[in-house]
Amino acid sequence: MLRKLLIPIVLGVLSVSPALADKVTTFTLPNGLEAVVIEDHRAPVVTHMMWYKIGSADEPRGKSGIAHFLEHLMFKGTKTVAPGAFSATVEAQGGDDNAFTYYDYTAYFQRVATDRLDLMMTMEADRMRGLILSEDNVTTERAVIIEERAQRTDSDPSALFGEQRRAAQYLNHPYGTPVIGWKHEAEALTREDALSFYRTYYAPNNAVLVVAGDVNPDEVRAMAEAHYGPIAPTPGLGERHRVTEPPQLAERRLAMTDPRVAQPYVIRSYLAPERNAGAQEKAAALTVLAELLGGNSTTSLLARALQFGDAPKAIYTSAYYDGLSLDISDFGFVAIPTPDTSLADLEAAVDGVLADFLKNGVDQTAFDRIKRQLRADEIYARDNVDGLARDYGSALTSGLTVADVQAWPDILQAVTPEDVLQAARDVLNRNNAVTGWLERPDAPKVEVTQ
Amino acid sequence: MLRKLLIPIVLGVLSVSPALADKVTTFTLPNGLEAVVIEDHRAPVVTHMMWYKIGSADEPRGKSGIAHFLEHLMFKGTKTVAPGAFSATVEAQGGDDNAFTYYDYTAYFQRVATDRLDLMMTMEADRMRGLILSEDNVTTERAVIIEERAQRTDSDPSALFGEQRRAAQYLNHPYGTPVIGWKHEAEALTREDALSFYRTYYAPNNAVLVVAGDVNPDEVRAMAEAHYGPIAPTPGLGERHRVTEPPQLAERRLAMTDPRVAQPYVIRSYLAPERNAGAQEKAAALTVLAELLGGNSTTSLLARALQFGDAPKAIYTSAYYDGLSLDISDFGFVAIPTPDTSLADLEAAVDGVLADFLKNGVDQTAFDRIKRQLRADEIYARDNVDGLARDYGSALTSGLTVADVQAWPDILQAVTPEDVLQAARDVLNRNNAVTGWLERPDAPKVEVTQ
Repeated sequence: MLRKLLIPIVLGVLSVSPALADKVTTFTLPNGLEAVVIEDHRAPVVTHMMWYKIGSADEPRGKSGIAHFLEHLMFKGTKTVAPGAFSATVEAQGGDDNAFTYYDYTAYFQRVATDRLDLMMTMEADRMRGLILSEDNVTTERAVIIEERAQRTDSDPSALFGEQRRAAQYLNHPYGTPVIGWKHEAEALTREDALSFYRTYYAPNNAVLVVAGDVNPDEVRAMAEAHYGPIAPTPGLGERHRVTEPPQLAERRLAMTDPRVAQPYVIRSYLAPERNAGAQEKAAALTVLAELLGGNSTTSLLARALQFGDAPKAIYTSAYYDGLSLDISDFGFVAIPTPDTSLADLEAAVDGVLADFLKNGVDQTAFDRIKRQLRADEIYARDNVDGLARDYGSALTSGLTVADVQAWPDILQAVTPEDVLQAARDVLNRNNAVTGWLERPDAPKVEVTQ
Repeated sequence: MLRKLLIPIVLGVLSVSPALADKVTTFTLPNGLEAVVIEDHRAPVVTHMMWYKIGSADEPRGKSGIAHFLEHLMFKGTKTVAPGAFSATVEAQGGDDNAFTYYDYTAYFQRVATDRLDLMMTMEADRMRGLILSEDNVTTERAVIIEERAQRTDSDPSALFGEQRRAAQYLNHPYGTPVIGWKHEAEALTREDALSFYRTYYAPNNAVLVVAGDVNPDEVRAMAEAHYGPIAPTPGLGERHRVTEPPQLAERRLAMTDPRVAQPYVIRSYLAPERNAGAQEKAAALTVLAELLGGNSTTSLLARALQFGDAPKAIYTSAYYDGLSLDISDFGFVAIPTPDTSLADLEAAVDGVLADFLKNGVDQTAFDRIKRQLRADEIYARDNVDGLARDYGSALTSGLTVADVQAWPDILQAVTPEDVLQAARDVLNRNNAVTGWLERPDAPKVEVTQ
């Protein structure tokens, strides 16, 4: 079982949502279930995804990790499906399945031959309300998620550092709590915690069905009505509201040392606006800004200045931004020093690049290149129907609409150099920032040559 | 009206709880109301306090400030007492009254001639369950608390800085949220928020009555039974449980600049254990440690090294610790530089003093002097019956018992130099620390002379 916990991206690749309006159909069932059908008839396969508008940032205080824990427990069976039989059935049908949890959503998906879609809907509808949890199942699976945390986080200084940095980034908002949960809280999660969360939030009026592949929208709708239509919604489920940040008035700085550190680095994150329905322009400008400063290119500003100049200070640089978030997001950079560069020197050098950029503005050649690349990414993305399904599912559970997803490529293309510069001026506010240094404790003292 | 919001002590005076076992009587009513009677017959006056085991750290997420807001609203009247009439009545009787809110408790008190005690209990019992709130009252008083915040916090860079530092100190625990509330949340508090909080937590089984002064315990008990006895408890009110901290793995550092800063300073706080029922020894050792390092004396280690040496670097130094807390507390120091000392130099100098202390251990002469001073403080404190009442009320709403309060002076006296050194080794862990610099933006660059 490869169920995955999405880890906040710090070294990530830019994800671009494509416009594919002509092959996307939507409908909503009377019980509130939203559905998106993406047609792709190149091969007789289909991806069936159920996205719930519930993530770790919706957890009750002190119950961190319950969204992810419940994701695991969703494979523990119902009246008609034995524990573990869900994935075994998918596999026996020649398919594969998986699930993932993030701050704003939890999703389950199966990829199967098209003629198995009905079976997938049967099983997914069955576990939307029919989950049966024994105390034994809960005890066993809790050990599994604690082990998952041990592997992914507790044994990885960079992951631990990420948790500490995010906790410092958010003074109030639950995005400061790790998706997998603080260890001491995850260890104390109970069957009742999971069932309470499940009963409230796993409901057709809190879910988005995405079906992508070799399907006919009318047939998908009929099938969805048959399987999901009879499921009662959770009454009184209001808007999602999380607490918001107070003004941040001072940069937070963290330095962590750990003997297990493979590569030291400096990382800084700034609070940044997210993509909002009907208002994605700032997020688009920040997306281009991240590419200009530190995209996957040897020609980014940071790479040229710090990696490929006369006296390289970095062996890796990157800028990152992911605007897909229900609430506030962050913009940041990361840089790994050359062996003879201190993190202090490297940070100062990055700040020099940022200052030069704010002073000199956008290089038109680089800007045009990035625009072309973004357009190409969009076109290539159309070939990946699973990626499209994820784009729609994550967007619709993060406060966006199908129209927003489809408008995004054109909004990206409409960004001007002035937009990018203004976005940089707005977001590069040190008061909203957390700067982190991760090093080995035996980091040698560096002689700085003048 | 002088209702006060307790502000976290950073430049505070050490508070010592006295033993006065011979004049303290306790009882508990069948409805759960705990009571403490402290006799002091020197003058025909009495202090009547009602302490609720509910403070800002018990607030629902996103409703910060509701405990303090409700404290204000408690003066808005009942069926028998008109809005504002509570304090007017106390004043007309020649007394005064007040209230205060902190992380772990909310308290109301009146100081009156002894023969008015019955009237005070009548009115306090009346508003424990009988509060009537109009929307107008709520709207008006919300403007008052926002103005209070504007005066105390938003116009004071040191107070704002304190909020940012506390938010960085606690990665999970609600002690990171300001007692007065984040402004944007306090502005949104409603009548229903206040009433919901009130109905649940203002109850005899969540309160401690403290009566101190020229009273007879039997008479106080009879009077309390008459006035408070008939009040129904809140059913199902369980133990107070707050979320706890995950491991803190990296010091957080904050530097804030503000043109309104009168005195720059460096401040560092470390997470520290609190006084626990039956286990106050570590807190006692930290109390002595704070005195040794930076107590109110020109002979503290920090003062001697940084203020009164050959080349003074500080015009003020202090170490602080307050063990009276339901959950985890903090230990810290603050230092204000001389005009020609940078905060970096000052911080390094403080760290030098701490390192020397850890290496050289406790100076026996200073240790003996502090022990004598703590004993003297205790004896003087007996003369302040209001202070005694506060000691018992705050202790009993912070997880301690009457026996703990009475044992505290002897536990302080039993602290050994080895205890202090061990406490210092345990608590001075930079991973658990937040270090803050507060400066004016025009702070001149300092030439450091070698």
